[in-house]
Amino acid sequence: MSDLIRQFHIADPFWKRYEDLLTDVVIPYQEAALRDQIPDAEKSHSIENFKMAADVMARGAEPGEYYGMVFQDSDLAKWIEAAAYSLVNTPDADLEARLDEVITTVQEAQYPDGYLNTYFTLKRPDKKWTNLREAHELYCAGHMIEAAVAYYEATGKRTLLDVMCRMADHIYDHFIVQQMPGYPGHPEIELALMRLYRATGNEKYLELAAHFINVRGVDPDYFIKENETNGWCVWSKDAGDVAYMQAHQPVRDMKVATGHAVRAVYLFTGMADLAATTGDQSLVEACRRLWDNIANKQMYITGGIGSTVHGEAFTKDYDLPNATAYAETCASIGLMFFARKMLDLEPKGNYADVMERALYNTVLAGMQLDGKRFFYVNPLEVIPGISGEVPGYRHALPQRPKWYGCACCPPNVTRTIASIAKYAWGVQDTTVYAHLFLGGSLDLTKELGARISVQTKYPYEGSVIYELDGAPVTLAVRIPEWSHHTKMVVDGVPMVVRPKDGYQYVKGASRVELYLDMEPRRYYADPLVTADSGMVAVQRGPLVYCAEGVDNEEDIFSLRLPADGAIQVQEMTKELCGTVKLIADGYSLQTDGSLYSTTRPKLRPTQIVMVPYYTWANRGLNKMRVWLPEL
Amino acid sequence: MSDLIRQFHIADPFWKRYEDLLTDVVIPYQEAALRDQIPDAEKSHSIENFKMAADVMARGAEPGEYYGMVFQDSDLAKWIEAAAYSLVNTPDADLEARLDEVITTVQEAQYPDGYLNTYFTLKRPDKKWTNLREAHELYCAGHMIEAAVAYYEATGKRTLLDVMCRMADHIYDHFIVQQMPGYPGHPEIELALMRLYRATGNEKYLELAAHFINVRGVDPDYFIKENETNGWCVWSKDAGDVAYMQAHQPVRDMKVATGHAVRAVYLFTGMADLAATTGDQSLVEACRRLWDNIANKQMYITGGIGSTVHGEAFTKDYDLPNATAYAETCASIGLMFFARKMLDLEPKGNYADVMERALYNTVLAGMQLDGKRFFYVNPLEVIPGISGEVPGYRHALPQRPKWYGCACCPPNVTRTIASIAKYAWGVQDTTVYAHLFLGGSLDLTKELGARISVQTKYPYEGSVIYELDGAPVTLAVRIPEWSHHTKMVVDGVPMVVRPKDGYQYVKGASRVELYLDMEPRRYYADPLVTADSGMVAVQRGPLVYCAEGVDNEEDIFSLRLPADGAIQVQEMTKELCGTVKLIADGYSLQTDGSLYSTTRPKLRPTQIVMVPYYTWANRGLNKMRVWLPEL
Repeated sequence: MSDLIRQFHIADPFWKRYEDLLTDVVIPYQEAALRDQIPDAEKSHSIENFKMAADVMARGAEPGEYYGMVFQDSDLAKWIEAAAYSLVNTPDADLEARLDEVITTVQEAQYPDGYLNTYFTLKRPDKKWTNLREAHELYCAGHMIEAAVAYYEATGKRTLLDVMCRMADHIYDHFIVQQMPGYPGHPEIELALMRLYRATGNEKYLELAAHFINVRGVDPDYFIKENETNGWCVWSKDAGDVAYMQAHQPVRDMKVATGHAVRAVYLFTGMADLAATTGDQSLVEACRRLWDNIANKQMYITGGIGSTVHGEAFTKDYDLPNATAYAETCASIGLMFFARKMLDLEPKGNYADVMERALYNTVLAGMQLDGKRFFYVNPLEVIPGISGEVPGYRHALPQRPKWYGCACCPPNVTRTIASIAKYAWGVQDTTVYAHLFLGGSLDLTKELGARISVQTKYPYEGSVIYELDGAPVTLAVRIPEWSHHTKMVVDGVPMVVRPKDGYQYVKGASRVELYLDMEPRRYYADPLVTADSGMVAVQRGPLVYCAEGVDNEEDIFSLRLPADGAIQVQEMTKELCGTVKLIADGYSLQTDGSLYSTTRPKLRPTQIVMVPYYTWANRGLNKMRVWLPEL
Repeated sequence: MSDLIRQFHIADPFWKRYEDLLTDVVIPYQEAALRDQIPDAEKSHSIENFKMAADVMARGAEPGEYYGMVFQDSDLAKWIEAAAYSLVNTPDADLEARLDEVITTVQEAQYPDGYLNTYFTLKRPDKKWTNLREAHELYCAGHMIEAAVAYYEATGKRTLLDVMCRMADHIYDHFIVQQMPGYPGHPEIELALMRLYRATGNEKYLELAAHFINVRGVDPDYFIKENETNGWCVWSKDAGDVAYMQAHQPVRDMKVATGHAVRAVYLFTGMADLAATTGDQSLVEACRRLWDNIANKQMYITGGIGSTVHGEAFTKDYDLPNATAYAETCASIGLMFFARKMLDLEPKGNYADVMERALYNTVLAGMQLDGKRFFYVNPLEVIPGISGEVPGYRHALPQRPKWYGCACCPPNVTRTIASIAKYAWGVQDTTVYAHLFLGGSLDLTKELGARISVQTKYPYEGSVIYELDGAPVTLAVRIPEWSHHTKMVVDGVPMVVRPKDGYQYVKGASRVELYLDMEPRRYYADPLVTADSGMVAVQRGPLVYCAEGVDNEEDIFSLRLPADGAIQVQEMTKELCGTVKLIADGYSLQTDGSLYSTTRPKLRPTQIVMVPYYTWANRGLNKMRVWLPEL
């Protein structure tokens, strides 16, 4: 699948801007952050930790002082992965040299037996594998495995891949050969081992991934027992609620998504990948159930998941508060992972619809348009003075910080955008799936003898023109759920659009014109979502819109959107890096200033200006609201 | 003022039921709770703590094991106060004998120097007065002073009054004579000393009350310094945010209500009482500002205050979420205290409007209709499965528990209801203020040579008939803000209602007929209250209504209330102890079951049944909602 990154060259205005931004700004910026060179930002120390660990392992130095979260290694790993993708389409000898240097450091930090983790090397060399609940060793290994596979596939260089194969072999020895009990408190290794298995063909890694998935939750007290006997902790000696770690029951018994949202979707991604690879039906069923629960009961309209700050977690069905939403950027990225693996399992449009919803709204909102600031938390309503300040809302920052003490999200956004082709396309036999709509050219000469070029200004315009050369293939074009009146013209002839499971299959054509319905639409939440009672959200194409104070005389909480008013689509402008605003006929309330009044507020006609959610908080401190009261 | 409890005999159906319930059920039930005799309820141990302390002080025993919160003494104090009020109108020799016995125990628990507090006697005899921030010594003293004054005024017996005068003298000696620094972390002593001053005429108590108010916040670091040097803590060695304790600035500089809501309104009550007594204008101004901030920016429509569970505190203006509301019962009781003192300061209807709003909604909701279960937290929306369970909502229980580990609210409701006459009436020179509308007879023969009898079925019917005998007085009848079309007939002649500051003054009449406007009314919140955007609440008379699942096919989150539909008033029934339901023409949404849908839900006409908020959660586990989306 990851060949797609090499095979697809992005050439549309929306994604080309992101590709250039990553190369020119984000990847260098994040490298600087990892090297602690960003003024007034939280320190990372991630590269420094590896250097000190290398000094210990390769040069016999005394351990220097580790700094950062227990999983700080993973920040570097995600950045290496992102930089690797970037090298594919934008070769950069300097960047590659710096990557080789940092990879040498990682290599030097490895134990002779393959073990690799700077927290343990520097702080707790005697405690390896004793605190799977908190210590994130397998999580960090997973991320570095992903980096290793990406760098190998990008450059053909094996150094990091060999390092991580040795680490994976070490893990295999510990958990399979020596039969030590346990599984990761934070899933990630499972999906990484699946990638390593595919990159190397080594069945051990498939076996190890399956092992971690299969033993999980079989003894629901595993983490409690480990905690009672291991004699140390990272944060707390209270093992707490094991459902937080999805360790409360065997994965095949799970019916609803619970606990820490990122852990959950990383786990489900590994499960879906394993299920797609092995055909394990009980696992397939579990994946479908869990998907259904998330997508149909626990997801914000922005594709955000994990609604509470308490444990960054899923709560209960339909509990989706707006101003106190957590909706971690990483969780929506994980939802994309899960969706993409479900598409490999069975190409159904709903998976891609949700993947697109998460991508174009929460994931992109995770990064400022200039590429230098990042959201961890993605609320759907922001009240300056309350958001980010008042207890219960403190996590919901109204503006993006430069970096985080816990910086999982920024490099995660980067690696996801840098590998967007993986999500956009799928190839199964001679069928090419267009899951997402990106302009550019897809070179499948080697596999299918075919090339596909795509012209589009998506997500702002709805026409997507596919030109196919070479050997005939079946093009499976996703018809999004939001496009109610989709038109297609195939080789000059209009065709009736009758999608099967969300995809229109077109065989052997040389030109496929897709015209999506870009009419702005009102969305209504299920009445059980009490936070959205009486409210309406506006979406155009894949973009959920929001009202910001700066466009609306700072008075967005007085706005009312009538059920039948017109919504005009502004031309694409230079504003907000080339966005389309929506202008809705609406009303603003005129009130008497009482806290509670028996006088129904008078309505003053006004124009409600809305911008795409992913562009919010790019113009200073602002009120923001996705769901507007309907009139 | 408290003579009013003796002077007023309740005889209307609503309050007579409460009076009987207190006598027959609540006071015995709470006594049993304090004696740890309620099965499956949280233990109190409050009386047992006093017995053990008496054994130490009077019989030289070794200290037994203290149990409960550091302020457990105050639970007994509030119950003694409530029982004292109850004895006035319902003499009960057995109850009085048991009270005398428990008062003897309290007396025996006192140190020879006057000090009294069982936590310190049993647990920390060497640490007295060293942790004013957390240890609640002055708070507990305040409550026992209130109990002492009440019991003295009810029975003429001086034992407890003398005990608490000795304690007050001890406090005076410590803080005034010896000039020890400090003031209470939890205000209460101030308002109590004002009562003790009035009961005894001893100016020292006025001076001491003024001292605690005047020194408060002058050194905003006082609690931080105390905490650094005292060498112990009850909960935390982090002194935290001193605004939580209203210690961040001198009281006269305060502009907004901050911190723990109960502490705030207890403090403001003491301030208002002192200001009314001394005429201190800077204090008057501070009280007016703080009142204005609470009543016009930080209060739920139910009269609940302190919107967050974090510190049981005020947050920022207009932050009034419904399902996660804290709105502690005690805080609304404190708001009644504050309102009542402001009325003594200046008789303006707004104070009484808010007092009534708090009383008939949040305060009464604090107790189950059967008198045996109690709410501490009073949300405005309840979602079974989420409320009381999901992090962020755990405090918002959907049903009343039998008792609490921290049981401040149950006996606080009891003493408030038991002394309702204090709030209902006010006498200033020859003017008798009818702040609230209670039926019964007020005997002012001694003071004014006058008697007033009142006939009403308020709050369910709007007619209130006053008959005045004896010497002529001015009857000042409050005209509530919600009564838009009020009629009055004076001695058979209709009069034009032209209230001055919310009161209609009627001089020398012998019969005053008041006909309040009981039309159900829709209320709209200020648009800045984002939680209520697009929502409407219904109120009739002083009662805010809510929809419960049991009356509405369990589907209240689908209900929509049109702006112009009829709302019928049901006849008073036996249900919910004689309530009036409202039946509104409305709609229920018919949806397709999608989490998000572009199809606007279809509307099915339905009848929305609403019950008074104070009666909610009396019929099992139920959805509940005060604010309904308007259509």
